[in-house]
Amino acid sequence: MSTNSANQEAAFGAWMHDVQARIESALGRFLPSSEAIPARLHDAMRYVTLGGGKRVRPLLACAAGELTGATPERLEVAACAVEMIHVYSLVHDDLPCMDDDVLRRGRPTCHVEFDEPTALLVGDSLQTLAFGLLAGDAFGADDDSPVTAARQLEMVGLLAHASGSLGMAGGQAIDLASVGHALNQPELELMHALKTGALIRAATLLGALCGEAMSESEYAALDRYARRAGLLFQVVDDILDCTASTATLGKTAGKDAAADKPTYVSLLGLDGARDLAERLRTDALEALSGFGQGADRLIALTDFITHRKF
Amino acid sequence: MSTNSANQEAAFGAWMHDVQARIESALGRFLPSSEAIPARLHDAMRYVTLGGGKRVRPLLACAAGELTGATPERLEVAACAVEMIHVYSLVHDDLPCMDDDVLRRGRPTCHVEFDEPTALLVGDSLQTLAFGLLAGDAFGADDDSPVTAARQLEMVGLLAHASGSLGMAGGQAIDLASVGHALNQPELELMHALKTGALIRAATLLGALCGEAMSESEYAALDRYARRAGLLFQVVDDILDCTASTATLGKTAGKDAAADKPTYVSLLGLDGARDLAERLRTDALEALSGFGQGADRLIALTDFITHRKF
Repeated sequence: MSTNSANQEAAFGAWMHDVQARIESALGRFLPSSEAIPARLHDAMRYVTLGGGKRVRPLLACAAGELTGATPERLEVAACAVEMIHVYSLVHDDLPCMDDDVLRRGRPTCHVEFDEPTALLVGDSLQTLAFGLLAGDAFGADDDSPVTAARQLEMVGLLAHASGSLGMAGGQAIDLASVGHALNQPELELMHALKTGALIRAATLLGALCGEAMSESEYAALDRYARRAGLLFQVVDDILDCTASTATLGKTAGKDAAADKPTYVSLLGLDGARDLAERLRTDALEALSGFGQGADRLIALTDFITHRKF
Repeated sequence: MSTNSANQEAAFGAWMHDVQARIESALGRFLPSSEAIPARLHDAMRYVTLGGGKRVRPLLACAAGELTGATPERLEVAACAVEMIHVYSLVHDDLPCMDDDVLRRGRPTCHVEFDEPTALLVGDSLQTLAFGLLAGDAFGADDDSPVTAARQLEMVGLLAHASGSLGMAGGQAIDLASVGHALNQPELELMHALKTGALIRAATLLGALCGEAMSESEYAALDRYARRAGLLFQVVDDILDCTASTATLGKTAGKDAAADKPTYVSLLGLDGARDLAERLRTDALEALSGFGQGADRLIALTDFITHRKF
């Protein structure tokens, strides 16, 4: 490794840690205090949201925000809203009637640490909070802000579409129906495009929407990037699910195979899945080619997502 | 009964049926089609939302909209968003880990008719859809519309606050924690102000926000009305839970007492609860005294809520 690329890698690592720390702090501010009534519910909301997670969606939002000169303060709002939707989905996915999982981010899942009704309400309340946050005044609206009321509504609509029955929740429903069924690659891609891809895409676009307006062709190029990045993230997730340990992942490893769930590895084999990840990475970066240096962070993040070990 | 009041009652009944029919039709349009993928999830969303319910919250929204000259089309949007939040809360409340109920609106509950994971996702998706609807273009924005982008954001924020951990979901958490505990009247009122009252209040205010702007004092008066109407609705619900039959209610009667849940009847006795309902009705109507004839529908609806038999 050259000194130059080692420097770049160190700078990227520092940026990533900085974003993660800022998101952690912002989430802490946006969540109701543990003392607010009902205290136990708020305690549980903070337990599941704070103190962990790779914060991939916030990282994507913040990296995409560099394309449009978005301020860190505005990016925190959009990034936290997306992360709250992501965390709510994890809490509900872990419930006994869904994946029945006991470990998440290296700690007991919400229904294990608290109880099932609380976990249900934690997920419900985090979803509500995400939309309230995105529609509220946390963007610090002033006359010069690129985030106008109309833009905010567009962002709420984008997040709603990405997380509802035509997005994340719909993908989860297809996933449930697919257990024990052989899916072909287009069917598997539709499931993941909804289950994971839709929110990854939304995170990326919402980050860019926190800054100056993009041209239609720039927005379309970023959208192409975001769709490929979403699929790439899932392919790598499937690879890690069968190659990494539970300790490394902080969640139960190998559970997709154990549940007889279709994955890219079960469909293409380990080498085939790795080849697909590399192709998706190349395609994703290709979509960013028109952005010049503004996309450097997004490029580095894409490489990180491809080669991550957890 | 005089001919005049009989005529008024018939006109109110006709208005109520008209609103209920329009809301049913609008919900059908705003929900994804049963053919859209994933079909089973969308089928279940339509099963729980369509074909039943008193539509009390839509009725309140539409009656309050008469104060500000809101159009039926705009009122349908706000009313359907509130109703979707209400229905999502019923679907999640009926789950085995919560109230474990099998009957709702005279039919099997969602997790009985479909399955538990589907019911979880139905609730999650209905919540998302409510916010997407309120933030979207269904208000038919034109330059003359009183529902500006800023107004829409205010409405999203109001609905989010009413339904999250500081509103409906928070009330549900207090309710869960209160089973088998003796609550005093202020504690019971806090629980209901959040669990039922917050969404009733939001429905009323959202209806008024679909029309011309109100003065601050008018908004404050309507807010006073809405808070009392919310409490009134719950007191009457508690009375009906111990006096009406399961067949009349279309949901399991007497289950609060069976679950040893605190109610206004267990706290005040049946006569005491009836007296409280009458006092709340008087107080609620008093708050409307400054509105003149524009409030006639809201007054008639308040009487209906007080004297309903189901």
